Amino acid sequence: MSEIADITCREDCRYMLDVPTRWNDNDMLGHVNNVMYYSYFEAIVVRFLMKEGGLHWTDDQVAPLAVETLCKFRRPLSYPDIVEAGLRVAKLGTSSVTYAIGLFTEGAESPAALGHFVHVFVDKQSDRPAPIPDSIREMFKRYS
Amino acid sequence: MSEIADITCREDCRYMLDVPTRWNDNDMLGHVNNVMYYSYFEAIVVRFLMKEGGLHWTDDQVAPLAVETLCKFRRPLSYPDIVEAGLRVAKLGTSSVTYAIGLFTEGAESPAALGHFVHVFVDKQSDRPAPIPDSIREMFKRYS
Amino acid sequence: MSEIADITCREDCRYMLDVPTRWNDNDMLGHVNNVMYYSYFEAIVVRFLMKEGGLHWTDDQVAPLAVETLCKFRRPLSYPDIVEAGLRVAKLGTSSVTYAIGLFTEGAESPAALGHFVHVFVDKQSDRPAPIPDSIREMFKRYS
Amino acid sequence: MSEIADITCREDCRYMLDVPTRWNDNDMLGHVNNVMYYSYFEAIVVRFLMKEGGLHWTDDQVAPLAVETLCKFRRPLSYPDIVEAGLRVAKLGTSSVTYAIGLFTEGAESPAALGHFVHVFVDKQSDRPAPIPDSIREMFKRYS
Repeated sequence: MSEIADITCREDCRYMLDVPTRWNDNDMLGHVNNVMYYSYFEAIVVRFLMKEGGLHWTDDQVAPLAVETLCKFRRPLSYPDIVEAGLRVAKLGTSSVTYAIGLFTEGAESPAALGHFVHVFVDKQSDRPAPIPDSIREMFKRYS
Repeated sequence: MSEIADITCREDCRYMLDVPTRWNDNDMLGHVNNVMYYSYFEAIVVRFLMKEGGLHWTDDQVAPLAVETLCKFRRPLSYPDIVEAGLRVAKLGTSSVTYAIGLFTEGAESPAALGHFVHVFVDKQSDRPAPIPDSIREMFKRYS
Repeated sequence: MSEIADITCREDCRYMLDVPTRWNDNDMLGHVNNVMYYSYFEAIVVRFLMKEGGLHWTDDQVAPLAVETLCKFRRPLSYPDIVEAGLRVAKLGTSSVTYAIGLFTEGAESPAALGHFVHVFVDKQSDRPAPIPDSIREMFKRYS
Repeated sequence: MSEIADITCREDCRYMLDVPTRWNDNDMLGHVNNVMYYSYFEAIVVRFLMKEGGLHWTDDQVAPLAVETLCKFRRPLSYPDIVEAGLRVAKLGTSSVTYAIGLFTEGAESPAALGHFVHVFVDKQSDRPAPIPDSIREMFKRYS
């Protein structure tokens, strides 16, 4: 998936969300555990879909399913940082969408961590990929 | 709730479960974070209800709801400990049940942490307390 | 510990903190998992000690250790709620302090969950209880 | 990093570890939350380094740091699955090592999820990449 344009600075982002770290996000080494970075990825993706796309996880007939995530860790995050998560829609297919994501510490221009998150929209009844609903597709275009 | 008999040693337990700790259960201070102790409490209570009581969280009409939990921390737990969790049914009402719980490290006779967990059985439709189903009530008596 | 005055409304609180829920705080039943309530308890207690008490977890010679926590669950919390956590210092001993804690949903006057959290201050070298440092003790009094 | 050979079946693994799921690993949709897959990745990598490599996170002068992780989600995992995690050393550099990882459900031949985890060994004092210690390098070779 080499064609995904990374988030390299704040200007690359189209949507941002503050994610407060929690004390127990830190591990024994005194930094945010690498697993938790994906919790911050999820925080911005879920919020983006609900607030901007009007997504209803339980009611909608077609729902997004995570199929791939990746994170490159550049500099540590630590509680009590407020992480500024940013994303842009980096690829848009018939049923799938890829968000490029960056996690920034306050005032930093380059991300402490960056990566991507791929969603495939699936029909809940058939469990098969389904076209992204039109309203969400249009929204994705605005954030790409 | 002073009348609950604490778990003070392994002999007080009627049901036991090994719960492996995870690396990121430890916090910055090098020990299992106090929040995670309740995850171990939940591990044994949920397993007990499913395996011994045949509980189905999503299908059953009447489901248990946590209404109170308490933990006293005596000695630290740390990854990679395998925690031995033990419980006994300490109080049994019409709709509610209280489990006394202890968490032991390998070979230790007294618990590293102890406490209780109170469930109220609720009718999912009416959202009101409901009698504990007979088969589960009988099971609770065997472990009290 | 019957003498602890519960948090029954917002006016009982002396310190408050907004704690945003996370998507994966919710469990299979669609509500915040009961374990996570203690993460919100920890969030306000840790912030309170650091911001108001100037506590340094790793540098200070005397550090607080959780010895008991309790939570009563009254009404469910659910992502994407912003939980308003409130506390007051309910008991103050030589080495120990008890915080009464309440968790509120937006606009609610009575807490969705309430309980307490007991810290004992311990000398890191000897691992024995130590008097609460004077500056922190004075701070505790202001929030009781 | 296209040159990493994926784990496509159990025979591709050189080291395996059972990882029990926890109730609150499941999210609102009734499956293990995608973030938690990385907790299972971490479980096997950490255990592998400690048991097979004799690594001491806090004492050793040179310590591994996660620099990239990736996961492809093929089929859902759900509590109470016991996840069988498998890894092989897929790439070995001077200071860095890449583990290919697969997560299997009981009896399944192909992984429910697969990906990789990249560690760079770092000198704790200088915070600069350092050669992988000889004993660990030899161990890595045996598992490649």
